Amino acid sequence: MAIRILITGGTFDKEYDELHGTLYFKDTHLPEMLSLGRCKLEVTTRTVMMVDSLDMTDEDRELILEQCRKSPEDEIVVTHGTDTMVETARLLGSVIRDKTVVLTGAMVPYAFGSSDGLFNLGSALSFAQTLPHGTYIAMNGRCFRWDNVRKNRELGIFETTERTESTE
Amino acid sequence: MAIRILITGGTFDKEYDELHGTLYFKDTHLPEMLSLGRCKLEVTTRTVMMVDSLDMTDEDRELILEQCRKSPEDEIVVTHGTDTMVETARLLGSVIRDKTVVLTGAMVPYAFGSSDGLFNLGSALSFAQTLPHGTYIAMNGRCFRWDNVRKNRELGIFETTERTESTE
Amino acid sequence: MAIRILITGGTFDKEYDELHGTLYFKDTHLPEMLSLGRCKLEVTTRTVMMVDSLDMTDEDRELILEQCRKSPEDEIVVTHGTDTMVETARLLGSVIRDKTVVLTGAMVPYAFGSSDGLFNLGSALSFAQTLPHGTYIAMNGRCFRWDNVRKNRELGIFETTERTESTE
Amino acid sequence: MAIRILITGGTFDKEYDELHGTLYFKDTHLPEMLSLGRCKLEVTTRTVMMVDSLDMTDEDRELILEQCRKSPEDEIVVTHGTDTMVETARLLGSVIRDKTVVLTGAMVPYAFGSSDGLFNLGSALSFAQTLPHGTYIAMNGRCFRWDNVRKNRELGIFETTERTESTE
Repeated sequence: MAIRILITGGTFDKEYDELHGTLYFKDTHLPEMLSLGRCKLEVTTRTVMMVDSLDMTDEDRELILEQCRKSPEDEIVVTHGTDTMVETARLLGSVIRDKTVVLTGAMVPYAFGSSDGLFNLGSALSFAQTLPHGTYIAMNGRCFRWDNVRKNRELGIFETTERTESTE
Repeated sequence: MAIRILITGGTFDKEYDELHGTLYFKDTHLPEMLSLGRCKLEVTTRTVMMVDSLDMTDEDRELILEQCRKSPEDEIVVTHGTDTMVETARLLGSVIRDKTVVLTGAMVPYAFGSSDGLFNLGSALSFAQTLPHGTYIAMNGRCFRWDNVRKNRELGIFETTERTESTE
Repeated sequence: MAIRILITGGTFDKEYDELHGTLYFKDTHLPEMLSLGRCKLEVTTRTVMMVDSLDMTDEDRELILEQCRKSPEDEIVVTHGTDTMVETARLLGSVIRDKTVVLTGAMVPYAFGSSDGLFNLGSALSFAQTLPHGTYIAMNGRCFRWDNVRKNRELGIFETTERTESTE
Repeated sequence: MAIRILITGGTFDKEYDELHGTLYFKDTHLPEMLSLGRCKLEVTTRTVMMVDSLDMTDEDRELILEQCRKSPEDEIVVTHGTDTMVETARLLGSVIRDKTVVLTGAMVPYAFGSSDGLFNLGSALSFAQTLPHGTYIAMNGRCFRWDNVRKNRELGIFETTERTESTE
C-alpha cells in the first residue's frame, strides 16, 4: 500500500540564507524527514512547486489538483504552507472523491530545530492510511475535513468552523 | 475527544548519563515532545513506569493492562521499548475489546537528536483517533495489528508475521 | 578570572515568529548556550540591546563602548550582528587599551540548529582569556585585529584587509 | 598557519547503536563539526584511533605522542575521552616542548544534540592558536596546564590540582 507525497513548499521547507539573513526555499527536506522517521512505508515523493502559500496562484492550485487526480496512489499527503492551506483543501475536497488526500505543514521550518514538521508528517501519513476517501487537513495532532476548517491567524492554529468535533 | 498516553519507558525516554557515560532513565520527554509538535489534542499523560522493555516483568504488563482498562478515554497511546513491545501488545490485544490502544516507541532516544520518536508519536496519536477498537503497534509510519506483528531483530524493524498487508 | 559578555543581538539571537513567518528578537540565547557548553568560567552576562546590526546607530555603538569601559572585568566578549561588526570593532579598538575585547556572532541563528554560534562562543571566550589587550573579531575559528579585518559580503566570511596572516 | 587535529575517540565520537541499544564508535564527527562551525582555519584532520579512553593502553598513548612529534604543524588539537585525558596530557606535556598541544573532549556525545562538543572544539582551536608551547587541557571554556589538572569524577569537571588559577 503506497502513499504519494506532493510537495508544494510552505514553512516546512523554508531555510535560512546565511548571506542575506532572510528565509528562502532551496531543496525540500522531505527525504531527510522520512529518513529521520525511519519511515518504512512505500512512499513516492514529488516536488510540484516550492512556494510560500501566500504566493500560490489559482494556476498553482489547479496544478496540485491535477497531480492528485493523476496520482496512481489512492493515499496522498500534500505538504503546504499554512496560510492558504484551507483554500487548497477546498478546491481538492470539492473535486476529488475517490482518494484520501491529507494536507499538512509546519508552524516552524523543519530546518530550525524547534519544528513541528516531523510530528505533523508522521501524523499526516497515518491519517492518509486510515481515513475514508476525502480531503483533510492534519496539523498538530488534529485532523479536519476540508469543509469544516479555518486557520485562526491570531492563535496560529487550525480549528473547526462549526462547533462540532473535528475528527470522529 | 481526549486521548490517554501511558508512558512505560523504553528507548524513547533514555538519556545519557554524563558522569558515567551510560544510558539511563530520568524523566519522560513526552510533555516536551507534545509541546514541540504543538499538539492541540486533549491529552492526559500518565507515567506508569520507566523501564527498559527487556526488564519488563509479567507484573509490569498486568499493570499496563490495568491502566488501559481503567482509562476513561477510549483512545490510548502506550510508549514502550521496542524489544518486548510485541509481548505487551499481545496481552493487551487479547483482553481489551472496547478501546483503541496503539503502542509506539523509538529506535533512537528522543534526547539524541536523530530520533524517530517525534514522527512515531505523531503517527500513533493519529492512528489512535481513526482505527477501530483493538490493539496496534505503530512504528515508522506503519501500523500493525497485535496478532500479526513481530520485531525483526536483525533489521531492527517491525513486520507482519503473515504475508498480508499491515494496515487495515 | 571572570569574563563579561555584552549582548547586542544580531543573527545569534534571532528567532522565528510562528505567527508571521518572520525573524525577530525575543530573549537572548546566551544563558542556554553557556549551559549547553557546560561553561565553567565565571561569566557575567549583560544584555545591552537586541538589534539587527544593520539598525545599529552611532548612539548604540557609544553605549557598547561605555559598557566596555565601565566593565570591572578585563576580558570582554561582545555578541554582535556580523553586518556591522567591523564598524563597532573599530570604535572599541581605537579607544580601549587596557582590556581584551572580542566581538563574535553567528552566520545562522542559534535557534536554527545548524548554527555556528556555539562554536564561535567557545572560541571567543578562549581568545578573550589569552590575547593581549586590544579589540578583536573572532569568527569561525579565526581571530582578527580590529584594524585588519573586513567582512566579505559575497562569501559571507571575515578576512584580513592586508595580505598578512590574521592571528599571530 | 595550519592546525592539526588528532582524533582518538572518546565521548565526542560515540554513537547510538539502534539495533542493540548501546553506545559504540563508527566514524568521527569532526568534519561535520568543523563544517557546522563554518571553520575557516586551515585544518588537517587525522584519526589516530577510535577508543574509549578507559580502554587506552600505554602503546596507544605512545602512538599519540609519536603523531604529535611528527606533526608538521606546531598547533595541535587532540580529541580524547575525558576519563584518562589527564594521563595522556601528562605524557605529551613531559616530552613535547616545541609545539602547542591542546586536548579536548565532550561530556556528551556530539551526536546527542545536547553536547558540549562544538563549544569545546571552538575553544580548543582558539587556545591552540594563542597559548605558548606546551600541553593543555581545554574543557568547558577553561584551559589547564598538563601538570596542574585533574578530573573530578564526582562532579564530572576538570579542575586545577593546586589552588592557583587555571589559565596562565
